[in-house]
Amino acid sequence: MIYDVIILGAGPAGLTAAIYAQRANLTCLVMEKEYMSGGQVVNTCEVDNYPGLPGIGGFELGMKFHEHAEQMGASFVNIEARHIGLEDGGRVKVIYTEQEEYRARTVVLAMGAAYRKLGVPGEEKLSGVGVSYCATCDGAFFKDRKVAVVGGGDVAMEDALFLARGCEKVYVIHRRDSFRAAPILQKRLREYENVEILWNTTVSELIGNSHLECIKLKHMDTGEESMLDVEGIFIAVGTIPNTRLVERLIRLDENGYIAADETGVTEVPGIFVAGDIRAKQMKQIVTAVSDGANAIESVQKYLLQ
Amino acid sequence: MIYDVIILGAGPAGLTAAIYAQRANLTCLVMEKEYMSGGQVVNTCEVDNYPGLPGIGGFELGMKFHEHAEQMGASFVNIEARHIGLEDGGRVKVIYTEQEEYRARTVVLAMGAAYRKLGVPGEEKLSGVGVSYCATCDGAFFKDRKVAVVGGGDVAMEDALFLARGCEKVYVIHRRDSFRAAPILQKRLREYENVEILWNTTVSELIGNSHLECIKLKHMDTGEESMLDVEGIFIAVGTIPNTRLVERLIRLDENGYIAADETGVTEVPGIFVAGDIRAKQMKQIVTAVSDGANAIESVQKYLLQ
Repeated sequence: MIYDVIILGAGPAGLTAAIYAQRANLTCLVMEKEYMSGGQVVNTCEVDNYPGLPGIGGFELGMKFHEHAEQMGASFVNIEARHIGLEDGGRVKVIYTEQEEYRARTVVLAMGAAYRKLGVPGEEKLSGVGVSYCATCDGAFFKDRKVAVVGGGDVAMEDALFLARGCEKVYVIHRRDSFRAAPILQKRLREYENVEILWNTTVSELIGNSHLECIKLKHMDTGEESMLDVEGIFIAVGTIPNTRLVERLIRLDENGYIAADETGVTEVPGIFVAGDIRAKQMKQIVTAVSDGANAIESVQKYLLQ
Repeated sequence: MIYDVIILGAGPAGLTAAIYAQRANLTCLVMEKEYMSGGQVVNTCEVDNYPGLPGIGGFELGMKFHEHAEQMGASFVNIEARHIGLEDGGRVKVIYTEQEEYRARTVVLAMGAAYRKLGVPGEEKLSGVGVSYCATCDGAFFKDRKVAVVGGGDVAMEDALFLARGCEKVYVIHRRDSFRAAPILQKRLREYENVEILWNTTVSELIGNSHLECIKLKHMDTGEESMLDVEGIFIAVGTIPNTRLVERLIRLDENGYIAADETGVTEVPGIFVAGDIRAKQMKQIVTAVSDGANAIESVQKYLLQ
């Protein structure tokens, strides 16, 4: 069997692509390597920015997306894609896995991205209960609280600025003695009296029981350790797109993301991209679902050629 | 008072912009001319392609969006914007209404678009119960049924192709003796045995009680009238963006939409665009909510300058 479309990844982008593919009566298979559908959202404690479902649990939202796609008749296979090959002059795409091969006329890449972790004790345990990787997503939960931001790039500055407008106090923790962020962002940050920058400092441990209570800091020059009481920490040290599968097939942008506009059309005919793996302004659930729908619209246009 | 952002229009794009603006602690006002928030979606019978809420009523979904924005603390004013002026070298935007003037540093245009109507008896009454303006939205409800498409452009062909894959029979009704749609789409349409084209034909009435039962046709040459039994009719005779307010402020594309990529940045500094009023591939709820979030991200970047 040759599917009209195989969707790689069952996060919000992939699941929305599945919903739109089913509604368009395309033959469609969703391939996900993790046991659970939903992507990163299932590890999120509370989601308050998906319109219509305020305050929903991340796990619950992931399940709702999955059930919606299933209800539309989408087929799923729980297996990891190992390689994408092209046959018949590129008209057929072959997805190789450890067991079987799957063939399709089009592929939607929706494998997502992961936030880069600090890799310190307590980080995994407190993720979602004080430890966050997205101020836009979770910042509003920390109104009038003390928080910290880790990082020195544009995203760290933007996160700190976002948080400074609502939080009592924002510590920016950076391992160097200068930021690489755009000067204008640094200038804006200095205008906030509730922002304090801790230079030459690293985070060595995140401490708390049911939620983050404080963080252990280490000064790079002196090696001195200290404790800082914060209820939230926003780790902005980069993201890693899950592009290993396609790095030989599609050229990636300077940050490692797949370049495509909102239509999801890539440089390889019949291969489309949706969600966090795509180079774009905002990696959010709302932009992921938009991408999923757009990718299937583009798939349909391609199949009509 | 000068708001950080005034959002014009309270459909899915405007309400999502309000949610994101509140979460970013921007001072924000949503201005809507209709009594009800929600935009076009409130007139939709059932929405089955907003991920996470399968089969929800359009009115209910519109209310959920509104409540979500309200819960985040968004302020609304039920008034029509009459004119947008620029003050202080463009840094302040003034929204003139019949009563008051409102000032903001940025404006998000989210006034939406409306489908062009046929203007025949029965159309309004049966809208949402057999009469649709969007095959992508409603086509799946007519699986294995007989339907008609009205129009001769690309969208009419795409709608007919979409429907032909799932419906028992698709009549394409066109008032001329040839289509203006792309030849490739016309060629694809001819490959479907369940598609029948009715040339030189107009729709003069839509008939049914609780739902569409049949349509009255009129042959252009002979003036002869006939009846056609269909359960659904998809009217694809164009869309009209609600751009009257900004036509002297911002250049519109050849179809009358505001040109901007997914970031919503327009040619006027501090004015952003989101939702169906923006020129884009897909006018859907999922793309509208994405646009709303992106517009506020762009607002924040602009305010930092």
